Amino acid sequence: MTETQGTSLGPLGIVAGSGALPRRLIESCRAAGREVFVLALAGEADRTTVDGVPHAWCRIGAAARGFDLLRANAVTELVLAGAVRRPSLSALRPDWRAAKFFARVGYRALGDDGLLSAVIKELEREGFRVVGVDKLLEADALLPAGPLGQFRPDAQAAADIEHGLRLARAIGALDIGQAVVVQQGLVLGVEAIEGTDGLLRRCARLRRAGPGGVLVKTAKPAQEQRVDRPTIGAHTVSLAAGAGLRGIAAEAGATLILDRAEVIRAADEAGLFVVGVSG
Amino acid sequence: MTETQGTSLGPLGIVAGSGALPRRLIESCRAAGREVFVLALAGEADRTTVDGVPHAWCRIGAAARGFDLLRANAVTELVLAGAVRRPSLSALRPDWRAAKFFARVGYRALGDDGLLSAVIKELEREGFRVVGVDKLLEADALLPAGPLGQFRPDAQAAADIEHGLRLARAIGALDIGQAVVVQQGLVLGVEAIEGTDGLLRRCARLRRAGPGGVLVKTAKPAQEQRVDRPTIGAHTVSLAAGAGLRGIAAEAGATLILDRAEVIRAADEAGLFVVGVSG
Repeated sequence: MTETQGTSLGPLGIVAGSGALPRRLIESCRAAGREVFVLALAGEADRTTVDGVPHAWCRIGAAARGFDLLRANAVTELVLAGAVRRPSLSALRPDWRAAKFFARVGYRALGDDGLLSAVIKELEREGFRVVGVDKLLEADALLPAGPLGQFRPDAQAAADIEHGLRLARAIGALDIGQAVVVQQGLVLGVEAIEGTDGLLRRCARLRRAGPGGVLVKTAKPAQEQRVDRPTIGAHTVSLAAGAGLRGIAAEAGATLILDRAEVIRAADEAGLFVVGVSG
Repeated sequence: MTETQGTSLGPLGIVAGSGALPRRLIESCRAAGREVFVLALAGEADRTTVDGVPHAWCRIGAAARGFDLLRANAVTELVLAGAVRRPSLSALRPDWRAAKFFARVGYRALGDDGLLSAVIKELEREGFRVVGVDKLLEADALLPAGPLGQFRPDAQAAADIEHGLRLARAIGALDIGQAVVVQQGLVLGVEAIEGTDGLLRRCARLRRAGPGGVLVKTAKPAQEQRVDRPTIGAHTVSLAAGAGLRGIAAEAGATLILDRAEVIRAADEAGLFVVGVSG
């Protein structure tokens, strides 16, 4: 039997977390004529994500029900899209299938970056093919190297970006978060479980006098590339502007841009730079 | 000439930042019959810190005026007490003396842990003897190893403390902050410029279901021991309780307890543990 492509694969299974990425992916699939079935994670995915789309809601801890739903809908290819706040063990209430998984990887993995890789391995063990969201979006969905809009970092901002990159990588290696905000060498904030939006809102109250800071976002070094990629949207630009920042730097070739045209428009209007950086 | 002790040294110079520590130190000196002169840092020290105490207010960037004030008040021995939010360069507005200092250490040092060591070297170069605040407080001012009140961490809390210690040390080594909050292996928050109070307030909204988290506080590895020691007071206990935490762990022998009896009473009342940890 030869491998088949396109719709003959059955609908693409989208396990949807929070944010705009899952809906963006659904639109991309529709434009490409690919059917989808969305497994919307309760408490994470937005209601609007699944508007007019075949879907079911599922608790994160209800793994057995999740597998049943995917199979009942003929899903063989799967993508994880959107953010998922890690639940505490108490909030997770694992069913027998999730408990079996945790018996293997250990409950302590809940706080561990290895958890995502283990989840993907488990999905593959169940026979699903797991693909990265960037493989399913348009080619321009990844942030390229260099400035995206009309503004560029000056020397002070470039120094803050360099410092922020070093810190964001270290924070990522510790499995704490993906982002930091640096202003004139001072670390205004570090992202942990609150996410980038929460970080930016808080930094609005922490800014110092003088030239504003930068948001620096990187992929975690150990990050499973098929899930939880750093993501930037027009919403990020608007929160960054509200926090008095001068721009956003994120890892080129690894960061998803939710809507490039909108991000550029928002950045140019607000006078912010958005720049893809590497190394 | 032999070295003289006690009041013959002249008044103790206290460079006062924010928080309750400077006032606590003033009371200790009074109880010991030692005169003080307080150089209160504008925008940092509380007004109540200097009530009824010989003092002058001084901008952080006004180094020349600061040195003049200390000398005019016959200060030869100096202690730095209380927190100081690092200013941005724009907010600092350095006078000629501060500018001379930065010309030597570099403006980039503003974001660097080495800054504090450089400040102390500069004070010594000017002829002041700089002592650690713990040398001037009662012997019980340092957190001892083990639990302080009647509560102790259980196995889950002990695991969170261990994880938190590893992260807090790493965060400290990066010169980001001194504290983290961990709940069931999840990093709820990392302290940066907002300080421990800000971290605890934010974590109240980030807590997950189930057993609460712990605040873990350590001295930065590279930290100049004479300034900016981690500090815990009854206020910290009350904010930790408000954030749903189950306790506080801090570095034994390195953390200052603002008022041991009050901290113990607050912790016992709230059902929180306060524990000194090491290694």
